[in-house]
Amino acid sequence: MSAAPPDSLERLRRRLAKFAAERDWDQFHSPKNLAMALVGEAGELVEHFQWISQEQSRTLDTDKRQAVAHELADILIYLIRIADKLGVDLIGAAEAKILINESRYPRDKVRGDARRAEEYE
Amino acid sequence: MSAAPPDSLERLRRRLAKFAAERDWDQFHSPKNLAMALVGEAGELVEHFQWISQEQSRTLDTDKRQAVAHELADILIYLIRIADKLGVDLIGAAEAKILINESRYPRDKVRGDARRAEEYE
Amino acid sequence: MSAAPPDSLERLRRRLAKFAAERDWDQFHSPKNLAMALVGEAGELVEHFQWISQEQSRTLDTDKRQAVAHELADILIYLIRIADKLGVDLIGAAEAKILINESRYPRDKVRGDARRAEEYE
Amino acid sequence: MSAAPPDSLERLRRRLAKFAAERDWDQFHSPKNLAMALVGEAGELVEHFQWISQEQSRTLDTDKRQAVAHELADILIYLIRIADKLGVDLIGAAEAKILINESRYPRDKVRGDARRAEEYE
Repeated sequence: MSAAPPDSLERLRRRLAKFAAERDWDQFHSPKNLAMALVGEAGELVEHFQWISQEQSRTLDTDKRQAVAHELADILIYLIRIADKLGVDLIGAAEAKILINESRYPRDKVRGDARRAEEYE
Repeated sequence: MSAAPPDSLERLRRRLAKFAAERDWDQFHSPKNLAMALVGEAGELVEHFQWISQEQSRTLDTDKRQAVAHELADILIYLIRIADKLGVDLIGAAEAKILINESRYPRDKVRGDARRAEEYE
Repeated sequence: MSAAPPDSLERLRRRLAKFAAERDWDQFHSPKNLAMALVGEAGELVEHFQWISQEQSRTLDTDKRQAVAHELADILIYLIRIADKLGVDLIGAAEAKILINESRYPRDKVRGDARRAEEYE
Repeated sequence: MSAAPPDSLERLRRRLAKFAAERDWDQFHSPKNLAMALVGEAGELVEHFQWISQEQSRTLDTDKRQAVAHELADILIYLIRIADKLGVDLIGAAEAKILINESRYPRDKVRGDARRAEEYE
Protein backbone atom coordinates (compact mmCIF):
# COMPACT_ATOMS: atom_id res chain seq x y z
CA MET A 1 0.00 0.00 0.00
CA SER A 2 1.63 3.19 -1.09
CA ALA A 3 1.12 6.76 0.02
CA ALA A 4 -0.37 9.19 -2.46
CA PRO A 5 2.27 10.96 -4.53
CA PRO A 6 3.02 14.46 -3.29
CA ASP A 7 0.98 17.24 -4.73
CA SER A 8 2.41 19.39 -7.51
CA LEU A 9 2.94 22.42 -5.25
CA GLU A 10 4.67 20.25 -2.67
CA ARG A 11 6.98 18.89 -5.35
CA LEU A 12 7.85 22.42 -6.46
CA ARG A 13 8.44 23.45 -2.87
CA ARG A 14 10.96 20.68 -2.36
CA ARG A 15 12.71 21.35 -5.64
CA LEU A 16 13.02 25.07 -4.95
CA ALA A 17 14.32 24.42 -1.44
CA LYS A 18 16.99 22.15 -2.91
CA PHE A 19 17.81 24.74 -5.60
CA ALA A 20 18.42 27.42 -2.97
CA ALA A 21 20.33 25.12 -0.63
CA GLU A 22 22.69 23.96 -3.38
CA ARG A 23 23.53 27.59 -4.14
CA ASP A 24 23.80 28.66 -0.50
CA TRP A 25 21.06 31.19 -1.17
CA ASP A 26 18.97 30.65 1.95
CA GLN A 27 20.97 33.46 3.55
CA PHE A 28 19.36 35.86 1.03
CA HIS A 29 15.92 34.28 1.14
CA SER A 30 14.48 36.07 4.13
CA PRO A 31 10.71 36.58 3.81
CA LYS A 32 11.43 40.31 3.55
CA ASN A 33 13.69 39.82 0.53
CA LEU A 34 11.44 37.23 -1.08
CA ALA A 35 8.45 39.58 -0.77
CA MET A 36 10.50 42.21 -2.60
CA ALA A 37 11.41 39.73 -5.32
CA LEU A 38 7.75 38.74 -5.66
CA VAL A 39 6.49 42.30 -6.05
CA GLY A 40 9.26 42.94 -8.58
CA GLU A 41 7.97 40.05 -10.68
CA ALA A 42 4.39 41.25 -10.22
CA GLY A 43 5.52 44.61 -11.57
CA GLU A 44 6.98 42.88 -14.63
CA LEU A 45 3.68 41.07 -15.13
CA VAL A 46 1.78 44.35 -15.06
CA GLU A 47 4.16 45.90 -17.59
CA HIS A 48 2.96 43.43 -20.20
CA PHE A 49 -0.56 44.75 -19.83
CA GLN A 50 -0.10 48.45 -19.15
CA TRP A 51 -0.68 49.88 -22.61
CA ILE A 52 -3.15 47.36 -24.00
CA SER A 53 -6.90 47.26 -23.54
CA GLN A 54 -8.72 44.76 -21.38
CA GLU A 55 -10.00 43.15 -24.56
CA GLN A 56 -6.50 42.81 -25.98
CA SER A 57 -5.33 41.30 -22.70
CA ARG A 58 -7.81 38.46 -23.20
CA THR A 59 -6.31 37.45 -26.54
CA LEU A 60 -2.52 37.65 -26.33
CA ASP A 61 -0.46 36.39 -29.23
CA THR A 62 1.76 33.35 -28.65
CA ASP A 63 4.97 35.24 -27.88
CA LYS A 64 3.38 37.58 -25.38
CA ARG A 65 1.42 34.74 -23.77
CA GLN A 66 4.70 32.87 -23.33
CA ALA A 67 6.38 35.91 -21.81
CA VAL A 68 3.46 36.33 -19.42
CA ALA A 69 3.65 32.64 -18.51
CA HIS A 70 7.27 33.18 -17.45
CA GLU A 71 6.25 36.05 -15.16
CA LEU A 72 3.47 33.96 -13.64
CA ALA A 73 6.02 31.20 -13.04
CA ASP A 74 8.38 33.63 -11.31
CA ILE A 75 5.60 34.83 -9.06
CA LEU A 76 4.58 31.29 -8.16
CA ILE A 77 8.20 30.40 -7.41
CA TYR A 78 8.63 33.27 -4.95
CA LEU A 79 5.20 32.63 -3.47
CA ILE A 80 6.15 29.03 -2.73
CA ARG A 81 9.48 30.12 -1.26
CA ILE A 82 7.94 32.68 1.12
CA ALA A 83 5.28 30.22 2.24
CA ASP A 84 7.97 27.61 2.81
CA LYS A 85 10.15 29.98 4.83
CA LEU A 86 7.18 30.97 7.01
CA GLY A 87 5.72 27.49 7.31
CA VAL A 88 2.47 28.55 5.63
CA ASP A 89 0.34 25.96 3.83
CA LEU A 90 -0.49 27.85 0.61
CA ILE A 91 -3.39 25.65 -0.48
CA GLY A 92 -4.93 25.69 2.98
CA ALA A 93 -4.52 29.48 3.18
CA ALA A 94 -6.21 29.91 -0.20
CA GLU A 95 -9.09 27.64 0.80
CA ALA A 96 -9.56 29.62 4.02
CA LYS A 97 -9.51 32.89 2.06
CA ILE A 98 -12.11 31.63 -0.40
CA LEU A 99 -14.43 30.81 2.50
CA ILE A 100 -13.98 34.37 3.78
CA ASN A 101 -14.65 35.77 0.31
CA GLU A 102 -17.80 33.67 -0.01
CA SER A 103 -19.20 35.26 3.12
CA ARG A 104 -17.97 38.77 2.30
CA TYR A 105 -19.37 38.69 -1.21
CA PRO A 106 -22.69 36.85 -1.13
CA ARG A 107 -23.74 35.85 -4.60
CA ASP A 108 -27.05 37.65 -4.61
CA LYS A 109 -25.66 40.87 -3.26
CA VAL A 110 -22.66 41.38 -5.51
CA ARG A 111 -23.76 39.86 -8.81
CA GLY A 112 -22.18 41.86 -11.61
CA ASP A 113 -20.68 44.35 -9.20
CA ALA A 114 -16.94 44.44 -8.62
CA ARG A 115 -16.63 47.16 -6.04
CA ARG A 116 -14.25 46.24 -3.31
CA ALA A 117 -15.62 44.81 -0.09
CA GLU A 118 -14.81 47.86 1.99
CA GLU A 119 -16.86 49.98 -0.35
CA TYR A 120 -20.05 48.14 0.57
CA GLU A 121 -22.37 49.38 3.34
CA MET B 1 -10.51 1.78 -11.79
CA SER B 2 -10.51 5.42 -10.86
CA ALA B 3 -8.61 8.37 -12.24
CA ALA B 4 -6.21 10.17 -9.94
CA PRO B 5 -7.93 12.95 -8.00
CA PRO B 6 -7.28 16.39 -9.43
CA ASP B 7 -4.31 18.23 -8.10
CA SER B 8 -4.78 20.88 -5.42
CA LEU B 9 -4.13 23.79 -7.81
CA GLU B 10 -6.58 22.35 -10.30
CA ARG B 11 -9.22 22.07 -7.59
CA LEU B 12 -8.65 25.71 -6.63
CA ARG B 13 -8.83 26.75 -10.27
CA ARG B 14 -12.23 25.15 -10.68
CA ARG B 15 -13.55 26.58 -7.45
CA LEU B 16 -12.42 30.10 -8.28
CA ALA B 17 -13.89 29.86 -11.78
CA LYS B 18 -17.22 28.86 -10.23
CA PHE B 19 -16.96 31.66 -7.65
CA ALA B 20 -16.53 34.26 -10.40
CA ALA B 21 -19.19 32.79 -12.66
CA GLU B 22 -21.78 32.74 -9.88
CA ARG B 23 -21.17 36.44 -9.27
CA ASP B 24 -21.02 37.38 -12.95
CA TRP B 25 -17.51 38.69 -12.37
CA ASP B 26 -15.82 37.25 -15.45
CA GLN B 27 -16.58 40.54 -17.17
CA PHE B 28 -14.16 42.25 -14.72
CA HIS B 29 -11.60 39.47 -14.76
CA SER B 30 -9.60 40.44 -17.81
CA PRO B 31 -5.93 39.47 -17.47
CA LYS B 32 -5.17 43.20 -17.37
CA ASN B 33 -7.41 43.75 -14.35
CA LEU B 34 -6.32 40.55 -12.62
CA ALA B 35 -2.66 41.56 -13.00
CA MET B 36 -3.51 44.84 -11.28
CA ALA B 37 -5.29 42.99 -8.47
CA LEU B 38 -2.30 40.70 -8.06
CA VAL B 39 0.24 43.51 -7.81
CA GLY B 40 -2.05 45.26 -5.32
CA GLU B 41 -1.96 42.19 -3.10
CA ALA B 42 1.80 41.91 -3.59
CA GLY B 43 2.07 45.49 -2.37
CA GLU B 44 0.08 44.58 0.74
CA LEU B 45 2.43 41.66 1.32
CA VAL B 46 5.45 43.94 1.15
CA GLU B 47 3.87 46.39 3.59
CA HIS B 48 4.06 43.75 6.31
CA PHE B 49 7.82 43.61 5.91
CA GLN B 50 8.81 47.16 5.09
CA TRP B 51 9.91 48.39 8.51
CA ILE B 52 11.23 45.17 10.00
CA SER B 53 14.66 43.63 9.57
CA GLN B 54 15.35 40.53 7.53
CA GLU B 55 15.94 38.67 10.77
CA GLN B 56 12.59 39.76 12.19
CA SER B 57 10.90 38.70 8.97
CA ARG B 58 12.10 35.15 9.58
CA THR B 59 10.36 34.92 12.96
CA LEU B 60 6.94 36.56 12.71
CA ASP B 61 4.58 36.30 15.63
CA THR B 62 1.36 34.33 15.17
CA ASP B 63 -0.90 37.27 14.28
CA LYS B 64 1.47 38.72 11.72
CA ARG B 65 2.15 35.30 10.24
CA GLN B 66 -1.60 34.80 9.87
CA ALA B 67 -1.99 38.19 8.19
CA VAL B 68 0.85 37.36 5.81
CA ALA B 69 -0.75 34.00 5.05
CA HIS B 70 -3.89 35.86 3.94
CA GLU B 71 -1.86 38.01 1.55
CA LEU B 72 -0.12 34.96 0.13
CA ALA B 73 -3.54 33.37 -0.38
CA ASP B 74 -4.80 36.45 -2.22
CA ILE B 75 -1.78 36.40 -4.50
CA LEU B 76 -2.21 32.69 -5.24
CA ILE B 77 -5.90 33.25 -5.99
CA TYR B 78 -5.22 35.96 -8.56
CA LEU B 79 -2.30 34.00 -9.99
CA ILE B 80 -4.57 31.01 -10.60
CA ARG B 81 -7.24 33.24 -12.13
CA ILE B 82 -4.86 34.91 -14.61
CA ALA B 83 -3.35 31.59 -15.62
CA ASP B 84 -6.85 30.19 -16.10
CA LYS B 85 -7.95 33.12 -18.23
CA LEU B 86 -4.84 32.82 -20.42
CA GLY B 87 -4.85 29.03 -20.58
CA VAL B 88 -1.42 28.83 -18.90
CA ASP B 89 -0.44 25.69 -16.98
CA LEU B 90 1.08 27.23 -13.84
CA ILE B 91 2.92 24.15 -12.64
CA GLY B 92 4.33 23.46 -16.09
CA ALA B 93 5.41 27.08 -16.44
CA ALA B 94 7.16 26.97 -13.06
CA GLU B 95 8.94 23.73 -13.94
CA ALA B 96 10.11 25.23 -17.23
CA LYS B 97 11.34 28.34 -15.41
CA ILE B 98 13.25 26.29 -12.87
CA LEU B 99 15.08 24.53 -15.72
CA ILE B 100 16.02 27.92 -17.15
CA ASN B 101 17.20 29.09 -13.73
CA GLU B 102 19.30 25.96 -13.30
CA SER B 103 21.17 26.76 -16.49
CA ARG B 104 21.41 30.50 -15.82
CA TYR B 105 22.68 30.04 -12.29
CA PRO B 106 25.04 27.06 -12.27
CA ARG B 107 25.68 25.89 -8.75
CA ASP B 108 29.43 26.27 -8.80
CA LYS B 109 29.35 29.72 -10.30
CA VAL B 110 26.80 31.43 -8.07
CA ARG B 111 27.29 29.72 -4.72
CA GLY B 112 26.61 32.28 -2.01
CA ASP B 113 26.17 35.07 -4.51
CA ALA B 114 22.74 36.57 -5.14
CA ARG B 115 23.51 39.07 -7.83
CA ARG B 116 20.95 39.03 -10.55
CA ALA B 117 21.64 37.06 -13.69
CA GLU B 118 22.09 40.11 -15.89
CA GLU B 119 24.82 41.34 -13.61
CA TYR B 120 27.03 38.36 -14.35
CA GLU B 121 29.67 38.39 -17.10
CA MET C 1 19.77 90.97 -3.23
CA SER C 2 17.98 87.83 -2.16
CA ALA C 3 18.34 84.24 -3.30
CA ALA C 4 15.41 82.62 -5.07
CA PRO C 5 13.07 80.82 -2.68
CA PRO C 6 13.64 77.08 -2.58
CA ASP C 7 11.66 75.01 -5.00
CA SER C 8 8.54 73.16 -3.85
CA LEU C 9 10.22 69.75 -3.97
CA GLU C 10 13.17 71.07 -2.01
CA ARG C 11 10.83 72.47 0.63
CA LEU C 12 9.10 69.09 0.92
CA ARG C 13 12.47 67.33 1.16
CA ARG C 14 13.50 69.48 4.10
CA ARG C 15 10.19 69.09 5.85
CA LEU C 16 10.19 65.30 5.47
CA ALA C 17 13.77 65.06 6.68
CA LYS C 18 12.78 67.02 9.78
CA PHE C 19 9.68 64.87 10.27
CA ALA C 20 11.79 61.69 10.27
CA ALA C 21 14.53 63.15 12.45
CA GLU C 22 12.08 64.32 15.09
CA ARG C 23 10.68 60.79 15.31
CA ASP C 24 14.07 59.07 15.21
CA TRP C 25 12.91 57.22 12.10
CA ASP C 26 16.04 57.58 10.01
CA GLN C 27 17.14 54.22 11.37
CA PHE C 28 14.18 52.65 9.51
CA HIS C 29 14.54 54.78 6.40
CA SER C 30 17.12 52.78 4.51
CA PRO C 31 16.64 53.03 0.74
CA LYS C 32 15.73 49.33 0.81
CA ASN C 33 12.87 49.92 3.25
CA LEU C 34 11.73 53.13 1.59
CA ALA C 35 11.57 51.35 -1.78
CA MET C 36 9.31 48.76 -0.16
CA ALA C 37 7.11 51.48 1.31
CA LEU C 38 6.89 53.16 -2.09
CA VAL C 39 5.85 50.02 -3.93
CA GLY C 40 3.28 49.34 -1.22
CA GLU C 41 1.73 52.75 -1.87
CA ALA C 42 1.91 52.16 -5.61
CA GLY C 43 -0.02 48.94 -5.04
CA GLU C 44 -2.68 50.89 -3.15
CA LEU C 45 -2.89 53.33 -6.05
CA VAL C 46 -3.45 50.50 -8.50
CA GLU C 47 -6.19 49.01 -6.32
CA HIS C 48 -8.32 52.09 -6.93
CA PHE C 49 -8.26 51.38 -10.65
CA GLN C 50 -8.26 47.60 -10.88
CA TRP C 51 -11.95 46.94 -11.55
CA ILE C 52 -12.87 50.07 -13.46
CA SER C 53 -12.47 50.78 -17.15
CA GLN C 54 -9.91 53.14 -18.59
CA GLU C 55 -12.75 55.47 -19.41
CA GLN C 56 -14.05 55.45 -15.84
CA SER C 57 -10.52 56.11 -14.59
CA ARG C 58 -10.52 59.39 -16.49
CA THR C 59 -13.61 60.68 -14.70
CA LEU C 60 -13.38 59.76 -11.02
CA ASP C 61 -15.97 61.11 -8.62
CA THR C 62 -14.82 63.54 -5.94
CA ASP C 63 -14.34 60.98 -3.15
CA LYS C 64 -12.35 58.59 -5.25
CA ARG C 65 -10.29 61.38 -6.74
CA GLN C 66 -9.46 62.54 -3.20
CA ALA C 67 -8.48 59.01 -2.17
CA VAL C 68 -6.25 58.72 -5.23
CA ALA C 69 -4.68 62.10 -4.43
CA HIS C 70 -3.68 60.72 -1.02
CA GLU C 71 -1.98 57.73 -2.64
CA LEU C 72 -0.13 60.00 -5.07
CA ALA C 73 1.00 62.07 -2.10
CA ASP C 74 2.30 59.00 -0.29
CA ILE C 75 4.24 57.94 -3.35
CA LEU C 76 5.75 61.40 -3.76
CA ILE C 77 6.71 61.46 -0.10
CA TYR C 78 8.61 58.17 -0.29
CA LEU C 79 10.12 59.15 -3.61
CA ILE C 80 11.53 62.34 -2.08
CA ARG C 81 12.83 60.41 0.92
CA ILE C 82 14.67 57.79 -1.15
CA ALA C 83 16.18 60.44 -3.38
CA ASP C 84 17.26 62.38 -0.31
CA LYS C 85 18.85 59.34 1.30
CA LEU C 86 20.77 58.52 -1.89
CA GLY C 87 21.67 62.10 -2.73
CA VAL C 88 19.78 61.99 -6.02
CA ASP C 89 18.44 65.19 -7.57
CA LEU C 90 14.94 64.09 -8.56
CA ILE C 91 14.23 66.92 -10.97
CA GLY C 92 17.59 66.56 -12.66
CA ALA C 93 17.11 62.79 -12.94
CA ALA C 94 13.68 63.29 -14.52
CA GLU C 95 15.03 65.83 -16.99
CA ALA C 96 17.82 63.43 -17.96
CA LYS C 97 15.31 60.62 -18.39
CA ILE C 98 13.08 62.74 -20.60
CA LEU C 99 16.05 63.44 -22.88
CA ILE C 100 16.67 59.70 -23.13
CA ASN C 101 12.99 59.07 -23.88
CA GLU C 102 13.01 61.73 -26.57
CA SER C 103 15.79 59.90 -28.38
CA ARG C 104 14.36 56.42 -27.77
CA TYR C 105 10.88 57.38 -28.95
CA PRO C 106 11.26 59.77 -31.89
CA ARG C 107 7.99 61.51 -32.59
CA ASP C 108 7.62 60.39 -36.17
CA LYS C 109 8.37 56.78 -35.42
CA VAL C 110 6.10 56.14 -32.48
CA ARG C 111 3.14 58.38 -33.14
CA GLY C 112 0.03 56.68 -31.80
CA ASP C 113 1.97 53.56 -30.87
CA ALA C 114 2.59 52.70 -27.24
CA ARG C 115 4.63 49.55 -27.54
CA ARG C 116 7.52 49.51 -25.17
CA ALA C 117 10.90 50.59 -26.40
CA GLU C 118 12.43 47.13 -26.28
CA GLU C 119 9.71 45.88 -28.59
CA TYR C 120 10.87 48.13 -31.41
CA GLU C 121 13.34 46.99 -34.08
CA MET D 1 7.40 93.36 -12.98
CA SER D 2 7.55 89.70 -13.86
CA ALA D 3 5.74 86.68 -12.45
CA ALA D 4 7.77 84.09 -10.58
CA PRO D 5 9.12 81.38 -12.85
CA PRO D 6 7.07 78.19 -12.75
CA ASP D 7 8.08 75.63 -10.22
CA SER D 8 10.22 72.65 -11.26
CA LEU D 9 7.36 70.18 -11.02
CA GLU D 10 5.13 72.46 -13.05
CA ARG D 11 7.81 72.72 -15.72
CA LEU D 12 8.10 68.94 -15.87
CA ARG D 13 4.32 68.60 -16.06
CA ARG D 14 4.16 70.86 -19.10
CA ARG D 15 7.07 69.15 -20.80
CA LEU D 16 5.61 65.68 -20.26
CA ALA D 17 2.20 66.78 -21.51
CA LYS D 18 3.85 68.08 -24.67
CA PHE D 19 5.87 64.88 -25.04
CA ALA D 20 2.71 62.77 -24.93
CA ALA D 21 0.72 65.08 -27.19
CA GLU D 22 3.42 65.10 -29.85
CA ARG D 23 3.34 61.30 -29.92
CA ASP D 24 -0.45 61.03 -29.78
CA TRP D 25 -0.06 59.02 -26.59
CA ASP D 26 -2.80 60.63 -24.53
CA GLN D 27 -5.11 57.91 -25.78
CA PHE D 28 -2.97 55.38 -23.83
CA HIS D 29 -2.46 57.62 -20.80
CA SER D 30 -5.61 56.85 -18.86
CA PRO D 31 -5.05 57.05 -15.11
CA LYS D 32 -5.63 53.28 -15.02
CA ASN D 33 -2.78 52.63 -17.46
CA LEU D 34 -0.48 55.22 -15.90
CA ALA D 35 -0.99 53.65 -12.47
CA MET D 36 0.09 50.32 -13.97
CA ALA D 37 3.15 51.93 -15.53
CA LEU D 38 4.02 53.53 -12.20
CA VAL D 39 3.80 50.30 -10.22
CA GLY D 40 5.89 48.59 -12.89
CA GLU D 41 8.64 51.16 -12.36
CA ALA D 42 8.27 50.82 -8.59
CA GLY D 43 8.81 47.09 -9.03
CA GLU D 44 12.00 47.79 -10.96
CA LEU D 45 13.14 50.08 -8.16
CA VAL D 46 12.59 47.35 -5.60
CA GLU D 47 14.54 44.83 -7.70
CA HIS D 48 17.68 46.88 -7.18
CA PHE D 49 17.39 46.39 -3.45
CA GLN D 50 15.95 42.92 -3.06
CA TRP D 51 19.09 40.91 -2.35
CA ILE D 52 21.17 43.53 -0.57
CA SER D 53 21.08 44.48 3.09
CA GLN D 54 19.65 47.70 4.42
CA GLU D 55 23.18 48.80 5.17
CA GLN D 56 24.33 48.12 1.62
CA SER D 57 21.32 50.04 0.29
CA ARG D 58 22.61 53.13 2.08
CA THR D 59 25.93 53.07 0.26
CA LEU D 60 25.35 52.16 -3.37
CA ASP D 61 28.23 52.31 -5.81
CA THR D 62 28.09 54.90 -8.60
CA ASP D 63 26.64 52.62 -11.28
CA LYS D 64 23.90 51.25 -9.10
CA ARG D 65 23.08 54.69 -7.74
CA GLN D 66 22.73 55.92 -11.33
CA ALA D 67 20.47 53.01 -12.23
CA VAL D 68 18.32 53.72 -9.18
CA ALA D 69 18.15 57.41 -10.11
CA HIS D 70 16.68 56.38 -13.49
CA GLU D 71 13.97 54.35 -11.77
CA LEU D 72 13.17 57.25 -9.44
CA ALA D 73 12.90 59.48 -12.49
CA ASP D 74 10.50 57.07 -14.19
CA ILE D 75 8.32 56.97 -11.10
CA LEU D 76 8.27 60.76 -10.84
CA ILE D 77 7.38 61.03 -14.51
CA TYR D 78 4.36 58.74 -14.22
CA LEU D 79 3.36 60.37 -10.94
CA ILE D 80 3.27 63.77 -12.61
CA ARG D 81 1.31 62.38 -15.54
CA ILE D 82 -1.38 60.75 -13.38
CA ALA D 83 -1.74 63.87 -11.27
CA ASP D 84 -2.02 65.95 -14.42
CA LYS D 85 -4.66 63.68 -15.94
CA LEU D 86 -6.72 63.80 -12.73
CA GLY D 87 -6.17 67.49 -12.04
CA VAL D 88 -4.45 66.79 -8.73
CA ASP D 89 -1.96 69.29 -7.29
CA LEU D 90 0.87 66.97 -6.23
CA ILE D 91 2.63 69.40 -3.93
CA GLY D 92 -0.60 70.42 -2.25
CA ALA D 93 -1.60 66.78 -1.82
CA ALA D 94 1.76 65.97 -0.24
CA GLU D 95 1.52 68.93 2.11
CA ALA D 96 -1.98 67.85 3.16
CA LYS D 97 -0.73 64.30 3.73
CA ILE D 98 2.17 65.49 5.87
CA LEU D 99 -0.28 67.36 8.10
CA ILE D 100 -2.29 64.15 8.50
CA ASN D 101 0.87 62.20 9.29
CA GLU D 102 1.90 64.76 11.89
CA SER D 103 -1.34 64.24 13.74
CA ARG D 104 -1.36 60.44 13.28
CA TYR D 105 2.22 60.04 14.44
CA PRO D 106 2.81 62.48 17.28
CA ARG D 107 6.49 62.87 17.93
CA ASP D 108 6.44 61.82 21.55
CA LYS D 109 4.35 58.76 20.94
CA VAL D 110 6.17 57.20 18.04
CA ARG D 111 9.78 58.14 18.64
CA GLY D 112 11.99 55.32 17.38
CA ASP D 113 9.00 53.14 16.59
CA ALA D 114 8.07 52.43 12.99
CA ARG D 115 4.98 50.32 13.42
CA ARG D 116 2.27 51.31 11.04
CA ALA D 117 -0.44 53.64 12.23
CA GLU D 118 -3.15 50.99 12.26
CA GLU D 119 -1.07 48.88 14.60
CA TYR D 120 -1.21 51.50 17.35
CA GLU D 121 -3.84 51.48 20.09
